[in-house]
Amino acid sequence: MPNIGFLNGQFLPLDELHVSVEDRGYQFGDGVYEVIRVYQGAPFSLHEHLTRLERSADAIRIPLPLTPSELEDKILKGIRSSRYASGKVYIQITRGVAPRSHPFPEPIIPTVVMTFREMMPLDEWDISHGVSAITVPDLRWGRCDIKSLNLLPNILAKQQAKEAHVFEAIFIRDGLVTEGTSCNVMGVWDHVLRTPALTNQILEGVTRNQVLKLARREGIAVQEGPIVATNLPEAQELFLIGTTIEVLPVTRLNGKPIANGEPGPVSQTLLARFRELVG
Amino acid sequence: MPNIGFLNGQFLPLDELHVSVEDRGYQFGDGVYEVIRVYQGAPFSLHEHLTRLERSADAIRIPLPLTPSELEDKILKGIRSSRYASGKVYIQITRGVAPRSHPFPEPIIPTVVMTFREMMPLDEWDISHGVSAITVPDLRWGRCDIKSLNLLPNILAKQQAKEAHVFEAIFIRDGLVTEGTSCNVMGVWDHVLRTPALTNQILEGVTRNQVLKLARREGIAVQEGPIVATNLPEAQELFLIGTTIEVLPVTRLNGKPIANGEPGPVSQTLLARFRELVG
Repeated sequence: MPNIGFLNGQFLPLDELHVSVEDRGYQFGDGVYEVIRVYQGAPFSLHEHLTRLERSADAIRIPLPLTPSELEDKILKGIRSSRYASGKVYIQITRGVAPRSHPFPEPIIPTVVMTFREMMPLDEWDISHGVSAITVPDLRWGRCDIKSLNLLPNILAKQQAKEAHVFEAIFIRDGLVTEGTSCNVMGVWDHVLRTPALTNQILEGVTRNQVLKLARREGIAVQEGPIVATNLPEAQELFLIGTTIEVLPVTRLNGKPIANGEPGPVSQTLLARFRELVG
Repeated sequence: MPNIGFLNGQFLPLDELHVSVEDRGYQFGDGVYEVIRVYQGAPFSLHEHLTRLERSADAIRIPLPLTPSELEDKILKGIRSSRYASGKVYIQITRGVAPRSHPFPEPIIPTVVMTFREMMPLDEWDISHGVSAITVPDLRWGRCDIKSLNLLPNILAKQQAKEAHVFEAIFIRDGLVTEGTSCNVMGVWDHVLRTPALTNQILEGVTRNQVLKLARREGIAVQEGPIVATNLPEAQELFLIGTTIEVLPVTRLNGKPIANGEPGPVSQTLLARFRELVG
């Protein structure tokens, strides 16, 4: 069956989902989004994703045209229709269609789009051996805590990683780690799990929060605070955290191994616990 | 007659111009654009706009699917069909349609969109008396020299200006003026016309370059370099420069008059010369 999507109230085959070229999402990136993982036919952490969607929309003042519970109904219906046991739901809300002009249109009639796709699993070899990453300057705007459609610096950095034959690019701003192009970053130094604290420079990852909770439950010491980029090479462990990648060890950074070049015990433990959670 | 547009080779009524929700312009703001002014049925500085479009596309590595001369043909055809003597052409090129994934799709098949609309003239009262503006922090990304679709900070600042009942918001970064939400900024201190030098923090405005040329021809001293935000209140003149606003005096900034609160001789001279150029 074809992939399906949702546009302003209607479910349609994905390739029939079209919007006006004057949708403000298309001309300004004037919108917000979420990606929700589906495990065994059920959305994971749906409530957390919808709460964050609301928060992002609120931050740029797009009124949500559906209540969280209406959105939830549509998402569940789309997942059932798409029939992917392992899937991902993409949901995007823009400030709607209006003749191009910078100020908000009046009234704002948001466009709601969803797509329901199969989740292509990560390479098991990557998960068990870890991936490589590079560091790149963080050129993004000052509100990376908003999950907005202004993703040009993210895609350029991800492409740079791809061309360097590595999995991910880790952003560095003012000498500190912020995050990956679409994930959070964690590391272990002196047996303490460290990850950047929540500021307007990083997104509050749903998986980040879950994993921190699991770590604390495991008795792992956790510190949310600055990670100095020059300390990255001396990490005992380094790993990426995100909705689609879960807990993914980084075993080479900028061409050099992290510790002995193998995934470490903290990331292995957290991945195991995370998989129990979603299994 | 209806407004018209152009999509991937075809002219159509604007309200029939639709793109896939998986166009990367819609999901990532992965594209570049230009706005070209039409005076008496002819595009102004078309060559400069197309050169800049090429430069922007090049900077984010979108291959232009039409040569500049093919683009010119389409633009001229659209202007003729739209029949607006005073109009504006919007042209946008994105990295095309592909299932959502950060790295560039292979191959890249760009989407080309144009819209042809009537130009609504600025209020003559605003032009002859000047407008009000506010200063706001510049939260944009590090490559504002690229005319990209990542415009969320721009529209949020413009909306802030609108709600403050002023015409424009002027961005300040690290204590220096960068530009307006969709225009360049110039000012006069000690009878010297000053405007920020070209860096990756501002766009090289087509009108900016024209106006600087006119100023030099008039024997006005010109200095391209930093404008310290705290010097703004003492400006003899302050004005905005852009494709749709031409040369627009700012006579009140953050609620206080600039000089005597009337447009000054430099901006008046430059506007007169500019109008001769386009007249």
